[in-house]
Amino acid sequence: MKNQIGNNISMTLFGESHGPCIGITLDGLPAGFKIDEERIRQDMDQRKAKGKISTQRHEEDKVEIVSGYFEGYTTGSALTILIQNQNTRSADYKKTQYRLRPGHADYTAYEKYKGFQDYRGGGHFSGRLTACIVAAGSICRQILESKNVYTGTHLKQVHHILDDSFDEKNLYNQIQAVNHMDFAILNPEKKEEMIQCIEQAASNKDSVGGILETAIINYPSGIGEPFFDSIESILSHLLFSIPAVKGVSFGEGFGFASLYGSQANDAFVYTDRIQTKTNHNAGINGGISNGMPILIHTCVKPTPSIFKEQESVDYQTKENVKLVIQGRHDPCILHRARVVVDSMVAFGLLDLWMSDKANGGWV
Amino acid sequence: MKNQIGNNISMTLFGESHGPCIGITLDGLPAGFKIDEERIRQDMDQRKAKGKISTQRHEEDKVEIVSGYFEGYTTGSALTILIQNQNTRSADYKKTQYRLRPGHADYTAYEKYKGFQDYRGGGHFSGRLTACIVAAGSICRQILESKNVYTGTHLKQVHHILDDSFDEKNLYNQIQAVNHMDFAILNPEKKEEMIQCIEQAASNKDSVGGILETAIINYPSGIGEPFFDSIESILSHLLFSIPAVKGVSFGEGFGFASLYGSQANDAFVYTDRIQTKTNHNAGINGGISNGMPILIHTCVKPTPSIFKEQESVDYQTKENVKLVIQGRHDPCILHRARVVVDSMVAFGLLDLWMSDKANGGWV
Amino acid sequence: MKNQIGNNISMTLFGESHGPCIGITLDGLPAGFKIDEERIRQDMDQRKAKGKISTQRHEEDKVEIVSGYFEGYTTGSALTILIQNQNTRSADYKKTQYRLRPGHADYTAYEKYKGFQDYRGGGHFSGRLTACIVAAGSICRQILESKNVYTGTHLKQVHHILDDSFDEKNLYNQIQAVNHMDFAILNPEKKEEMIQCIEQAASNKDSVGGILETAIINYPSGIGEPFFDSIESILSHLLFSIPAVKGVSFGEGFGFASLYGSQANDAFVYTDRIQTKTNHNAGINGGISNGMPILIHTCVKPTPSIFKEQESVDYQTKENVKLVIQGRHDPCILHRARVVVDSMVAFGLLDLWMSDKANGGWV
Amino acid sequence: MKNQIGNNISMTLFGESHGPCIGITLDGLPAGFKIDEERIRQDMDQRKAKGKISTQRHEEDKVEIVSGYFEGYTTGSALTILIQNQNTRSADYKKTQYRLRPGHADYTAYEKYKGFQDYRGGGHFSGRLTACIVAAGSICRQILESKNVYTGTHLKQVHHILDDSFDEKNLYNQIQAVNHMDFAILNPEKKEEMIQCIEQAASNKDSVGGILETAIINYPSGIGEPFFDSIESILSHLLFSIPAVKGVSFGEGFGFASLYGSQANDAFVYTDRIQTKTNHNAGINGGISNGMPILIHTCVKPTPSIFKEQESVDYQTKENVKLVIQGRHDPCILHRARVVVDSMVAFGLLDLWMSDKANGGWV
Repeated sequence: MKNQIGNNISMTLFGESHGPCIGITLDGLPAGFKIDEERIRQDMDQRKAKGKISTQRHEEDKVEIVSGYFEGYTTGSALTILIQNQNTRSADYKKTQYRLRPGHADYTAYEKYKGFQDYRGGGHFSGRLTACIVAAGSICRQILESKNVYTGTHLKQVHHILDDSFDEKNLYNQIQAVNHMDFAILNPEKKEEMIQCIEQAASNKDSVGGILETAIINYPSGIGEPFFDSIESILSHLLFSIPAVKGVSFGEGFGFASLYGSQANDAFVYTDRIQTKTNHNAGINGGISNGMPILIHTCVKPTPSIFKEQESVDYQTKENVKLVIQGRHDPCILHRARVVVDSMVAFGLLDLWMSDKANGGWV
Repeated sequence: MKNQIGNNISMTLFGESHGPCIGITLDGLPAGFKIDEERIRQDMDQRKAKGKISTQRHEEDKVEIVSGYFEGYTTGSALTILIQNQNTRSADYKKTQYRLRPGHADYTAYEKYKGFQDYRGGGHFSGRLTACIVAAGSICRQILESKNVYTGTHLKQVHHILDDSFDEKNLYNQIQAVNHMDFAILNPEKKEEMIQCIEQAASNKDSVGGILETAIINYPSGIGEPFFDSIESILSHLLFSIPAVKGVSFGEGFGFASLYGSQANDAFVYTDRIQTKTNHNAGINGGISNGMPILIHTCVKPTPSIFKEQESVDYQTKENVKLVIQGRHDPCILHRARVVVDSMVAFGLLDLWMSDKANGGWV
Repeated sequence: MKNQIGNNISMTLFGESHGPCIGITLDGLPAGFKIDEERIRQDMDQRKAKGKISTQRHEEDKVEIVSGYFEGYTTGSALTILIQNQNTRSADYKKTQYRLRPGHADYTAYEKYKGFQDYRGGGHFSGRLTACIVAAGSICRQILESKNVYTGTHLKQVHHILDDSFDEKNLYNQIQAVNHMDFAILNPEKKEEMIQCIEQAASNKDSVGGILETAIINYPSGIGEPFFDSIESILSHLLFSIPAVKGVSFGEGFGFASLYGSQANDAFVYTDRIQTKTNHNAGINGGISNGMPILIHTCVKPTPSIFKEQESVDYQTKENVKLVIQGRHDPCILHRARVVVDSMVAFGLLDLWMSDKANGGWV
Repeated sequence: MKNQIGNNISMTLFGESHGPCIGITLDGLPAGFKIDEERIRQDMDQRKAKGKISTQRHEEDKVEIVSGYFEGYTTGSALTILIQNQNTRSADYKKTQYRLRPGHADYTAYEKYKGFQDYRGGGHFSGRLTACIVAAGSICRQILESKNVYTGTHLKQVHHILDDSFDEKNLYNQIQAVNHMDFAILNPEKKEEMIQCIEQAASNKDSVGGILETAIINYPSGIGEPFFDSIESILSHLLFSIPAVKGVSFGEGFGFASLYGSQANDAFVYTDRIQTKTNHNAGINGGISNGMPILIHTCVKPTPSIFKEQESVDYQTKENVKLVIQGRHDPCILHRARVVVDSMVAFGLLDLWMSDKANGGWV
């Protein structure tokens, strides 16, 4: 359904990069949940552009909850969040509107919307819309955390530089740690290397991509569907909605290709409860959670907005042209995107859990 | 919605491995499409177990279309396909029903369905249900082919053995070629190696995984959505519904992580129409098709059914046990799964295209 | 979504009057509900054609549950019901396929399906498909009854003959009573009158319509939505799917038009719990249940299949023709339709209740 | 899905009577439709409270389109409309929040939302939210009108006073006429009578209800579904979402109950195209449009807000109380509700038409 997703709770996303505001409606939330607005601000802050490794467009991103929220609590009605656009320089785009930026949606937008799209700053395709998802996701994360379920994401890879992987024995602490960092990594020695790598790409008028690793703990067993709403299906659907995501995998991911079944299977063991001895399958069997941590890798391509001269076409004249992008752009978006990943994951897991509540325990 | 997927057309999947039949309902198909039943048989044949590299459970998999189909054409009403189950040995499962098979959904099924699931042969989780998806997918592929859109999949990797990659200059021929093979590969020299690898795993009571590569050509530009129904979102949702899939990527996929933006962007060029010079982004920008070939990698984990002794737990007694799986199983499912991938992809692309028809060209 | 309805549970309906079988898939049912197959037979029996007041096409309507049902209990997977078609005389229809029967969907089917529809016996439009809804609805009713919620329907009006109305003080007994009748009325003296009225219409080669009144008791308060899924919205959507239904109202219904607010409002009173002193609003305020009985009127138009000569058009030749319908038809369908109404209502109320379970009581 | 409706286009409704704003998101609109903002203002004006027969709460109801709209045209992205709330007197409600107003949703809101609802002025249940539906509906009506499809509604009945019925031979002119009236009736002599009736009820501290009659012309044949999305199903679902609607019927409606089939059937006749000689079935056969005018009756109960003393209960103390409602209320809402009916109908018919475009004419 285009700008909507979800079954028991849903998100409806609207707005464009240079319109008056962007926003999102969360429908289906339970009544009576106390929202921590300060926490929303903290989550929004993780997505903000800061320093030389991000765009110089700085937006306040003040979150207004205009419905479904009364005296500090959710009401159970549709909850809508608005974020005003302020720091727009729309004139930057008018003169180049027909020059198709490689790697961007300019061409496909013309093909789909026949020239009626708001082309300014990427319009409805802009990564700016993910600000709304972070605000909505923060509420979902708060609800999950009230049930002891936590999610966290770090930059596993930036270009050729690798961070450590999550350590399944220490996930709670690692999740807490990365959730308090501006630049979320597990091995602090890698931070400078990664930042230098990004800055160097920026100084070369270029950009870099990488891989985000996400962990979720304490998600209960028995949630998800064999067909078609497996946990992997629901989460990948959400993650591939984030601009620039081109790969998603669970547990061993593409590494499963070169394993034998005897290596890939996770043996069961009973201690005080049934668990698996290993967790190659990342807490999911047959599309359904088994209570072990869920682990996800999300590949983010390099930002398509680079300042190098590129070959392109003018959509109106059909002439081949040389294009040099103007404006303010991110040489890397991984450090800003990770909280978007957490938000998408939190929404998906909350929605699936509510689906389970609908028919679970009925008889 | 659990066993349903799709917006303008939908699939509803039902049945269990050892019940009387399995089936699927395709709703929303246009009226008046002439179905080639022989083609359905051919597609079904690609999924059939053959030789030593597959399970010894052989099913006829005769497809009966019981509704929505009249005098050779779709009627426009819900089209339901039934496939009888015949070669079942349900007694194999009764005695081991509480012994949780590692890598399978036995444990999660108990957690979700509280012991009421049909446990025989994996029940509703069984890969057998994908037979229905192939039958439904065959109809979708036929409709797409009537519009000149083709999809094909080959075994890019089986354990450590690599096939060649699709050659974008020769995709039509390669797609036709693999669609006529029982064991779909591009480089014929790799066939024996792969088969030996699978047989060796089987003789070791083990199994292997791998990677499937899928290509789609001539899909029109301008289809898909920025949020939340990007082409990647819709296709990954479907692909992760296939049992054993643990990774999905598009174009350069996880390889994007170590590219610079200047390498990852696909420059535009005008010849007789606007195209890209390279196709790292796999025919998709901003979630929307750009008319170039769509290329997908799908990672399939090794079959969890292995004959080696494994550690497990008895769900009822909570005792740790040694488990040796009985029955008939596949040491590798990639050669059977590839047509399931084509089917899922065809369904998703057809549904998105119909969504575009709903509002496209209206004004 | 065309042949599908429902949010937390869904029905998917397929089949045609003269195809091999008709069927329905109920998805989203809880696992572990013990189905009473004998009860399904009883409910199916209420819909069967009997005596001179119904069609002479007699079908066994044997219900086969082919999935989602194991050892007497729901499994939690998609539950599919098949009913074979047996007593078909398809040749009756071939020669008259282009002659549009007034009041039927023949013309609109041609316009929508371009001649590819299965025209035999009304095809997918046939009232015969409601047999599947009764089977599915019986399962929904059983689940509701396990929670003490009961639904029953009687023939409030057949042509000009009126039955008594439900008595809110005696609803449980009245519901039980009508649910055990073949010809469901409250005032036994009216039965003969109504049957004579139907038989007389039949002997005149004509048919009659009427009004069904439905009561639901013990449905809990707090279920439904202000927008857009009010109880009235959900139930009317389902009821207007029944062929021949042309009017639906709740409580005072169209009688509200001539009341003053002071007459229409139901005053609240606290005894052991909060109730209303009257129940003009039929247990629903603002689209949400208030715990009082829900009361519905459903108007069913006269069966369009009459044996009188009618004016019509041949769709192929565009000639104006005189039409005399052949075949076997019902001079009145109210006595058969009432269990379809109960089934639709039960499905809708169960689905809404499950939606409430999804987010209710979460925080 | 709670606050959402629609398949190919959808509406998502949010806001409360006394919150900062109310709003609606229309998703799935085609790109490139030129919106006439002046027309939106005219439609909004029809819903405005005016004179003594309406509430004294006067709102400017200025419509802001904040997304999906660029340089005068729809962009094809989600279109969101915001309407600020200005003339609120929230203090009126604080002191009476636990006193359940008869006929209102106060009690059911407590039961559903556990006291967390925004109770001020009816909160999310308020008829005020229909202002958003009129704004969204105006866009839908404009699109339909660009295809020559028109909808109009008049007050067929206010309490005991009847207006004329639509004359099928003169529908275009009658629709145009009522669409330009503040108080929409066909027989001008009835206007004063109706207004006096309303004023008299108001002076008695009471309120009145009535019946709205709606006509739609030129809607193409072949649109709608036999199950479950009949035109009647889709439209009734929407109409019963309007607060105070308690009955919906099509064509002869409840009058069908006392007709014979030979009277109720509409004979076909070929002139330059196939039509029906009569139109008892209101342009719909088997749930699908036949090209004749669609005619609907919608019963609106008397406004529950009356100033007479009423019996009620305090939800908190459970005491029986005498209640006298304060504030500003409508003694009749029919003249304001009729444009809401047109808006709902326009949305439903546009959505169904787009569904038809999705699969129609594909093969």
